[in-house]
Amino acid sequence: MDLKNIARLRVTCPDKPGIIAAVTSFLHHHGANITALDQHATEPYGGTLYLRLEFQTPNLDVSGPALERAFQDVVATPFDMAWDITYGRNTKRMAILVSRQEHCLMELLWRFARGELPCEVTMVVSNHPDQREAVENFGIPYHYVPVDGDKPAAEARMLEILDGQTDLVVLARYMQILSESFVGHFPNRIINIHHSFLPAFAGADPYRQAYERGVKLIGATAHYVTPELDAGPIIEQDVTRVSHRHSVEELRAIGRDLERQVLARAVACHLDDKIIVSGNKTWVF
Amino acid sequence: MDLKNIARLRVTCPDKPGIIAAVTSFLHHHGANITALDQHATEPYGGTLYLRLEFQTPNLDVSGPALERAFQDVVATPFDMAWDITYGRNTKRMAILVSRQEHCLMELLWRFARGELPCEVTMVVSNHPDQREAVENFGIPYHYVPVDGDKPAAEARMLEILDGQTDLVVLARYMQILSESFVGHFPNRIINIHHSFLPAFAGADPYRQAYERGVKLIGATAHYVTPELDAGPIIEQDVTRVSHRHSVEELRAIGRDLERQVLARAVACHLDDKIIVSGNKTWVF
Amino acid sequence: MDLKNIARLRVTCPDKPGIIAAVTSFLHHHGANITALDQHATEPYGGTLYLRLEFQTPNLDVSGPALERAFQDVVATPFDMAWDITYGRNTKRMAILVSRQEHCLMELLWRFARGELPCEVTMVVSNHPDQREAVENFGIPYHYVPVDGDKPAAEARMLEILDGQTDLVVLARYMQILSESFVGHFPNRIINIHHSFLPAFAGADPYRQAYERGVKLIGATAHYVTPELDAGPIIEQDVTRVSHRHSVEELRAIGRDLERQVLARAVACHLDDKIIVSGNKTWVF
Amino acid sequence: MDLKNIARLRVTCPDKPGIIAAVTSFLHHHGANITALDQHATEPYGGTLYLRLEFQTPNLDVSGPALERAFQDVVATPFDMAWDITYGRNTKRMAILVSRQEHCLMELLWRFARGELPCEVTMVVSNHPDQREAVENFGIPYHYVPVDGDKPAAEARMLEILDGQTDLVVLARYMQILSESFVGHFPNRIINIHHSFLPAFAGADPYRQAYERGVKLIGATAHYVTPELDAGPIIEQDVTRVSHRHSVEELRAIGRDLERQVLARAVACHLDDKIIVSGNKTWVF
Repeated sequence: MDLKNIARLRVTCPDKPGIIAAVTSFLHHHGANITALDQHATEPYGGTLYLRLEFQTPNLDVSGPALERAFQDVVATPFDMAWDITYGRNTKRMAILVSRQEHCLMELLWRFARGELPCEVTMVVSNHPDQREAVENFGIPYHYVPVDGDKPAAEARMLEILDGQTDLVVLARYMQILSESFVGHFPNRIINIHHSFLPAFAGADPYRQAYERGVKLIGATAHYVTPELDAGPIIEQDVTRVSHRHSVEELRAIGRDLERQVLARAVACHLDDKIIVSGNKTWVF
Repeated sequence: MDLKNIARLRVTCPDKPGIIAAVTSFLHHHGANITALDQHATEPYGGTLYLRLEFQTPNLDVSGPALERAFQDVVATPFDMAWDITYGRNTKRMAILVSRQEHCLMELLWRFARGELPCEVTMVVSNHPDQREAVENFGIPYHYVPVDGDKPAAEARMLEILDGQTDLVVLARYMQILSESFVGHFPNRIINIHHSFLPAFAGADPYRQAYERGVKLIGATAHYVTPELDAGPIIEQDVTRVSHRHSVEELRAIGRDLERQVLARAVACHLDDKIIVSGNKTWVF
Repeated sequence: MDLKNIARLRVTCPDKPGIIAAVTSFLHHHGANITALDQHATEPYGGTLYLRLEFQTPNLDVSGPALERAFQDVVATPFDMAWDITYGRNTKRMAILVSRQEHCLMELLWRFARGELPCEVTMVVSNHPDQREAVENFGIPYHYVPVDGDKPAAEARMLEILDGQTDLVVLARYMQILSESFVGHFPNRIINIHHSFLPAFAGADPYRQAYERGVKLIGATAHYVTPELDAGPIIEQDVTRVSHRHSVEELRAIGRDLERQVLARAVACHLDDKIIVSGNKTWVF
Repeated sequence: MDLKNIARLRVTCPDKPGIIAAVTSFLHHHGANITALDQHATEPYGGTLYLRLEFQTPNLDVSGPALERAFQDVVATPFDMAWDITYGRNTKRMAILVSRQEHCLMELLWRFARGELPCEVTMVVSNHPDQREAVENFGIPYHYVPVDGDKPAAEARMLEILDGQTDLVVLARYMQILSESFVGHFPNRIINIHHSFLPAFAGADPYRQAYERGVKLIGATAHYVTPELDAGPIIEQDVTRVSHRHSVEELRAIGRDLERQVLARAVACHLDDKIIVSGNKTWVF
């Protein structure tokens, strides 16, 4: 399907009778062909409804902005909706932040190069110079922004680089903690990969923690970044079975494969506008 | 949620613009509160649309039959739909057929006794007398119908017992092949558990086949029964990792746990009217 | 294989060259046929070696006690080993403690009845009277020991019942916290099933915690009980994928299937003497 | 651990008392420090024993060839063993064959570049010119050997290139069927990745077959190549859950991730000499 002709509507509102009929009739009457609809109500009539629709835009009888104004008046206001519409033709601009470990970075670049990620990778930013050549081989600019004690200056420099041209920031094993102020520039638009099954083993060196606790599965968690460390809304998680045979070093190697997969899946969901964040949870449709 | 107040609509039709709006508006206008909606189109506009809705019935402005007549005229005919509506208040009557191995039977009876299966288990039929006491302990009638060479007579006897009071037949490791004529009495209403990841290892003694082929995973498959052996629409499958360490006997023991889980999940999906069968495939919403 | 003819040797010692040769030669020269050998060294020569052997006893040239005395002198003392030998002919006596929720209890009783658990279930003890009939149907004594505020009295009563005839205590969703003194009677011989992927969601109501944190997988953990709540050595864990669609109640239902499987697998490993505990970790061979 | 100092012994023989004692005593007396031992007997005393040991070589009291001669005389001949010893210092030379699809190739090259595969990648051979640049960026020679109808000539050319410098051939989605004669040059040394859970969906276009059969899991299988297509000894398999929502194209995309992981794991097992092939099955220790 041609992304240029696709739009997505995401809605959060109090659940009441008639919402789906109202939304689908509105879109149908304006010439939008609905190609996907997913919804979930936390409880029927009394809870919250989460709704995602995908529709084709070539036969719309009005422009995007006009459609949105009409939707606000005719549907969203009466039903007290929080909502947005995104258009496939607006390719998302993704920046990747990375430190020394490159496995997550390379997975994303490689999928991007294969055409598996519907975005533009605009830059890679790192507090180490190591990955420059590998990144530039993909034709992507590499910015080396060392941190070296003066984190405010480093963050200011990064904001300068990212500013105005970044829809999504991916922390592909970026090992610096970002300030609340930096995070505040990209609400629900920074995705981090944490190398454990959160909330187990939050904080530093989770594979060592897992080894010492003697767990039988290790995991990885992709989540949106909030000011509270490792506590933001979880997007995707997975685990792999391990045993007493694995050293900390082997857990790290096994974990790398997991981190690559989990981060790539979470980024793909975000790029397809499949995620609705509500409070500290995600609805991934 | 009280099952008495719930109905499910399942629809299969050529995909065209306006279907979801038409269906949801129709239901809304008749006082049906939609609590779940799932749909899938094999391809947009040109393919087939599969749609399942769950709605609450207390505020319907007409009786069930009147609603169905109106739906046929106003929605189903114009959109060329195959469809049905089921009502939660019509508890499904389930009969279980079993041979000597009782693990799948016991899993179902036990979940039924816990209130986990929304049905009435009306009887257990077996070609062996072995499980009578265990079954009667649950307060369920047990019919011993030996096969002994004269299968037509045995099937006739079973049809007599099942007749008119059976909505679903579950083959919980029933080791007799049913005739095309018997199967024809219950189209898409006989569920079998096959002890392999179909289509691998169809036919007899699949764990021995798996052992000899040296596979690294063994599986189980729940499917609707059609006249062609082990080839009906698949409802649910799962696998477990095994290794060279496992003997055929150990594969069987590991497989039993898998069979119990896979069959129980498939039966639950059927009882919740979550399955649409199309050709030789299922859509499980 | 006939359990009566089988013994298992478990060894923990500083890793050094020659251990496996010494152990296997010793057993071979005394007529023990080794049928399984698993070992793991945390690091070669410098770390700790964990070793488990299974051997056949019919051709032993000495009695069990004589073999053990010789092993201590000839092998264990020179290599500074902690070790034990268990004999399959000494059937383990297992007591099950349970509260209101019966799914784990029933899974164990049912596997026991099928001959899948090599033990004798000597009794079920509960702080509720509810499961008496179900348990007595299996021919197993049921002891109702209410707690009602006076926990020391209840524990004293339980110890009286268990005393001298219990090799393994299984907490099959027993919802009372046991005192350090009670736990001290059964070191590494009490197995608990916790309904989360520990260390995530330790403590009360883990499915609600999981729901509120929005995790994408829920888990279950079987572990030996130590005085510190939910912190003992982990024996077995597993997880199932869930989504935003599942209510707390549905997470509990999905979790029950997981708890049954995980607890049953952990108990089977213990009964087969497959577990070596070292510090707060297990080696499960 | 330094690979230069490690050797592996693999043994297949009729199971009898005393084998493990004989092997471990022999190695210990020659100064070999055993660091891993895995064994499996298909049945005790009467079946076949498979045994793998890893040991350190720096303190050997004889050279490798002398050790092997002594082992043959003292241990292997009396116990009727098939066996080999491999030395970590002999780095395996791996050639990769590929057609147009590059995901498996890139996964292997990338792991190789990260130091995760203990081998030397000596060349990539393809019947298409497409991947030359990507491969040469890794500093690895790329040989374009078109097939174009004259397969015998192409195979002759490939043998010429591979000859004398190849320990392992990996078919990383090489879409040409190799002749029995070609396969015969590399017994149990050609690994193929098949994009299904074999034996289900052998042959062409397995994702389409899976789609049409409506399976709920798709798989990938890495196996040694034998003259019979898709029927060689299975090394590793895995599966991923899919649903009616996935088109053939999406199954292919999901499958690619699976193929990469399964092939990489199988190749790593081969390089670590963890596999014993017996008949048409593998023992993977």
